[in-house]
Amino acid sequence: MDLIPDLPSGPLDVYRKQASFNWKKMKLFLESPEDIEIANEAFKYMEEEPIFQHPDRDLTLEEERHLTFQRMKKVYNSDILYPDDLFMNRNKHRVLNNVISLYDWSLLARKSLLIEFPMGAFLGLGTDRHRKFINSLMNREIGFAFCLTEISHGSNTKALRTEARYDIESESFILHTPDFEAAKCWAGCLGKTASHCLVFAQLYTPDGVCHGLHNFVTPVRDPQTLQPYPGVTIFDMGAKIGLNGMDNGVIMFNHYKIPRENLLNKTGDVTVDGKYVSPFKDPSKRFEGRVGITEFGVINLTKALTISIRYSAVRRQFGPENQGEIPVLEYPLQQYRLFPYLSGLYVLHCFSVKLKDRNMSFRLAVMGGSEDPDYLANFGQEIHALSCFSKPYSGWMARDAVQESREACGGHGYLKAAGFGKIRNDNDANCTYEGDNNVLLQQTSNWLLSLWVARQRTDFTRFPMGTVSYLNQYNKYLNMKWSSDTFNRNLKDEDIIQTCLDTYCWLVCWLCKATSQDMETLKSSGKNKFDIKNNCQIFRAHNLSLAYGERVFITWFLESIKEADVSLQIPLYRLLALFSLTRVLKHVSSYVEGGLINGENVVITNIEEHITRLLSEILPDSVSLIDAFAPPDFFLNSVLGNADGRVYEHMYRKMLTSPGSVTRDTNWQEMRYNIPSKL
Amino acid sequence: MDLIPDLPSGPLDVYRKQASFNWKKMKLFLESPEDIEIANEAFKYMEEEPIFQHPDRDLTLEEERHLTFQRMKKVYNSDILYPDDLFMNRNKHRVLNNVISLYDWSLLARKSLLIEFPMGAFLGLGTDRHRKFINSLMNREIGFAFCLTEISHGSNTKALRTEARYDIESESFILHTPDFEAAKCWAGCLGKTASHCLVFAQLYTPDGVCHGLHNFVTPVRDPQTLQPYPGVTIFDMGAKIGLNGMDNGVIMFNHYKIPRENLLNKTGDVTVDGKYVSPFKDPSKRFEGRVGITEFGVINLTKALTISIRYSAVRRQFGPENQGEIPVLEYPLQQYRLFPYLSGLYVLHCFSVKLKDRNMSFRLAVMGGSEDPDYLANFGQEIHALSCFSKPYSGWMARDAVQESREACGGHGYLKAAGFGKIRNDNDANCTYEGDNNVLLQQTSNWLLSLWVARQRTDFTRFPMGTVSYLNQYNKYLNMKWSSDTFNRNLKDEDIIQTCLDTYCWLVCWLCKATSQDMETLKSSGKNKFDIKNNCQIFRAHNLSLAYGERVFITWFLESIKEADVSLQIPLYRLLALFSLTRVLKHVSSYVEGGLINGENVVITNIEEHITRLLSEILPDSVSLIDAFAPPDFFLNSVLGNADGRVYEHMYRKMLTSPGSVTRDTNWQEMRYNIPSKL
Repeated sequence: MDLIPDLPSGPLDVYRKQASFNWKKMKLFLESPEDIEIANEAFKYMEEEPIFQHPDRDLTLEEERHLTFQRMKKVYNSDILYPDDLFMNRNKHRVLNNVISLYDWSLLARKSLLIEFPMGAFLGLGTDRHRKFINSLMNREIGFAFCLTEISHGSNTKALRTEARYDIESESFILHTPDFEAAKCWAGCLGKTASHCLVFAQLYTPDGVCHGLHNFVTPVRDPQTLQPYPGVTIFDMGAKIGLNGMDNGVIMFNHYKIPRENLLNKTGDVTVDGKYVSPFKDPSKRFEGRVGITEFGVINLTKALTISIRYSAVRRQFGPENQGEIPVLEYPLQQYRLFPYLSGLYVLHCFSVKLKDRNMSFRLAVMGGSEDPDYLANFGQEIHALSCFSKPYSGWMARDAVQESREACGGHGYLKAAGFGKIRNDNDANCTYEGDNNVLLQQTSNWLLSLWVARQRTDFTRFPMGTVSYLNQYNKYLNMKWSSDTFNRNLKDEDIIQTCLDTYCWLVCWLCKATSQDMETLKSSGKNKFDIKNNCQIFRAHNLSLAYGERVFITWFLESIKEADVSLQIPLYRLLALFSLTRVLKHVSSYVEGGLINGENVVITNIEEHITRLLSEILPDSVSLIDAFAPPDFFLNSVLGNADGRVYEHMYRKMLTSPGSVTRDTNWQEMRYNIPSKL
Repeated sequence: MDLIPDLPSGPLDVYRKQASFNWKKMKLFLESPEDIEIANEAFKYMEEEPIFQHPDRDLTLEEERHLTFQRMKKVYNSDILYPDDLFMNRNKHRVLNNVISLYDWSLLARKSLLIEFPMGAFLGLGTDRHRKFINSLMNREIGFAFCLTEISHGSNTKALRTEARYDIESESFILHTPDFEAAKCWAGCLGKTASHCLVFAQLYTPDGVCHGLHNFVTPVRDPQTLQPYPGVTIFDMGAKIGLNGMDNGVIMFNHYKIPRENLLNKTGDVTVDGKYVSPFKDPSKRFEGRVGITEFGVINLTKALTISIRYSAVRRQFGPENQGEIPVLEYPLQQYRLFPYLSGLYVLHCFSVKLKDRNMSFRLAVMGGSEDPDYLANFGQEIHALSCFSKPYSGWMARDAVQESREACGGHGYLKAAGFGKIRNDNDANCTYEGDNNVLLQQTSNWLLSLWVARQRTDFTRFPMGTVSYLNQYNKYLNMKWSSDTFNRNLKDEDIIQTCLDTYCWLVCWLCKATSQDMETLKSSGKNKFDIKNNCQIFRAHNLSLAYGERVFITWFLESIKEADVSLQIPLYRLLALFSLTRVLKHVSSYVEGGLINGENVVITNIEEHITRLLSEILPDSVSLIDAFAPPDFFLNSVLGNADGRVYEHMYRKMLTSPGSVTRDTNWQEMRYNIPSKL
């Protein structure tokens, strides 16, 4: 327990003493001692280094980027943040990335995109002939930007229009951007920094045949002068809503030549004389990005909820007659606004850890090559379906939690120094990149609907992660009905969770069935495939993806609880019951439509009563539940959320010591009034 | 029609040609020709004046405030934006305020708070002896900040702790701030600008009796030097999430003397020898603030939806096989994400116009003094209940619409130049000031529940605005049941709306009944009043406030439609039907609990089918529906939302001409790479 320092005493003690469990044990349930140790060392290092100190004043865009650049250099040169075994030790890499994320998302993005992502691309798509680029990257002689999205195409990658035409005479590819709409954009580190790009372009052989998107190593700036090469035009995309420590850029190529060898040729190559050859197909789809972004939500939920729960436990307003004011956290409505997200944080955290582990098992199995191809295909499908759900869900949950937290902190939550503005602005990007949330979510339902069609000839237990095994019993579930006893008052939390899981099994089966039926109806009315799919999203396919994923969230957290120390299980069951019930309650329309509810109106009331009970039971634990996640104050960087709970003292100090707080405006002479008459 | 210039031709023409109505007629349904003329002149003036040009680069906090200050001066000195009859012509004032709001919220806040709010306060709370302050305000010799909220108290104004003790000897009040937690904060224009404050403080007479909150005119800074006076400490609150053109401040008084006459003494005074006298009680509660903020949501919805709908109509992605790509607006899911807010914009706009009118009628009736006091009391209660609903609802609707619009514009929506960041950050404050949204909403349900208790001895038709008249028939409504024919497919939009209204009548009655019953149960279990109220918020009282208000929204918009040109009625009915159905669908849990649904699961499916139909019917009108609201491009200030729809050209121009876009970073020397090996 020496690993986890005690928290400072203050107004939060009242709640901390009420907790039903030891928060340090809870922290060890969430993170291993090794991870805590790695993180502690990194926290300490960053907190002490001058370059990581928080500036006193707002920075201009250029200052913010410059500072982020300097910090990135510091990260690269630090044995603690960038140890030699970083790429060998995935877990250490993950923990250190989380520490940097807690500090600043722009810094994480910069240091990941410039060097680490291209490393991955060379290993995944390149061959021996690209080793020189890896060496140069290791020596910091070059830095990369990843160019996929174009101005007029994002989600529809097949429609990308940047061309790479092979020229036999010069043995080179000629990259060309037909017009501004085909310019590569949003590429991180491209605005001012990158010397090279990894450009996805349509590969054309001299016979005029297009072989689809391939990736080309493309030098774009002189690493010495940072000037773009002739034939390359680069725009900086300027300020964004958030992530302004990162310089995103736009790039256009004007018949720009690059050597033939710069094609990353693992899955397709062009011979010197211009023939396209495809050595083998890589069966492993890559979901690294989405799996990783799922975890981003955990970081943002952690920060937002640490601030709002601690502040709500200290902030007093109104109270029972003649009894003084009470902390706003005592209000059931305030609990209802925050605790479902607190439960979501726990559930999402455990999910994202497991998803990473299982994704790793999958990739090892693919690399091993000895597994049954069917098994691998099923495994890959599940990972794909889950990550297409969890990436959007995580970003949206964080989005909503940040906003609710901001509002739950009232006026003071609107101060920049409260920290919510930055969390919100940075999290916002997660809802869009690596696949727009709404587009991505369709992948999950598409897969489920394709399974449903084949349900009579499929054994759903063959999917290795078990996320669809209940589809074997679709008949049983479709016949399910809620009785007036469902969710009755005397139900224990474990049983509540089980009932929620059954409800989700019903819901997934029913939504599969209902969506398929709607699609059939549309088909018989003559609609094309494209329209049929789009016309079933709103009330059906969208909810299907959510229902499938929420059920996995619950299932996996339940597994985690069973592995937890006994002293932690009661509070964890409460969290999961709250999570499950609040999510179940969002699907009531489907229960009515599908006939799960049929005159049993008492069930909803039962659910609501359980939620109300759970909120009051979680209340005494709530501060400790968030303490187990909370980063050090330096990383939270919020006047409202410090571990000592001394909110007003921190506000006072911040205001008193902010440059210019008590002095006149520099332009005060202009701001004076007309000569006043005697008042 | 000369009043309304034609829109430029471009990619949006396709949709504009599909519209079922004349968008200029629609604009005239929304605004009178007089209002359009006033706005046009103001738009033109601001668009031409150098000081209102949009800067090319990000400003620092100090620069942003300075520029806003200069703009405020320009407003004050402009015959167009600040005409002589401004205070005599409330409608002109409203229209000009809307123009300024469309331009910049900070500018509106600054110019309103510094001079206009104190004018109102002097007229409302002051007497003849304060005329000199009005004169000085008119001459711009002084400027005010309004000081109510304290560091540790916002919503609970009774617990405010700043003291004003009357001192007989010096015939003055001595203002004192006991500690930092009692410091006045969030006062607009206080950080750097105001020479005077209107301070709400607890008035103590020499006998030690506290007479509650009163308002004191308090000089705080020398108008010539802008230095605070001795005895006054002022902090600038620094950067906020948004509204950074405004300087909010904190102020503390150290036994600070002000003349006896500086008490605004309309409703209470202290004699020279220290006796408290209360001339009369002012019966009119003031809801100006909340009524006004309801309209703020309209402005933010307008801006966000103009950008997202126009962009969605131009942005193409995917399409049916071999048929090219289609605008993303063609996707039902995209329509479902945006059109309910578009309908909300129409409904909210008409509501806020009517609410302002009725509030004005109420105030005139109070001033007239000839009306029946019961009538006035009922009128006042309705205005209070409605504005306590509409202020939160409007802020939240705008919040959600801005966020959905941001996400609906994908990656490009994340550019600062898209405009959503600023709209979101500025709108965010609306959810908190003038009463925290969640706290305010309780006022509405409190009132309804008090009416419910007295239902058997109340004639609800006596409430002048008719917002509760259906409570007379509570028995009829409580016996209502949906049949399988409710919302059947053949229903016309007018009938759908009527069915939604009936549903709301049922819902309000049932929520009144259910909440009251829950309260009785809690009472008999021994809970105190305070806890009883708080324990009924989540699933009951909160929804009750929403249901009451949503019904009024629908009712009032229905009135407006009936007054509209016949050619506009079909599209308007569609909007209202969509608004009503999507809102009705949010209360399904209550229908199940209250037994309105009882085995009739087809009703929900009917509702969903109508929504789907309405989306497709609104689609061809959608661009023109938002055109009728859209401000000139200069005010929208978004590369994605221009009236010509030439999105990519505007993006190109913006990036090409932004300072530093194609040059190296100022710090490029530091950003160079290690000396590279030969690549």
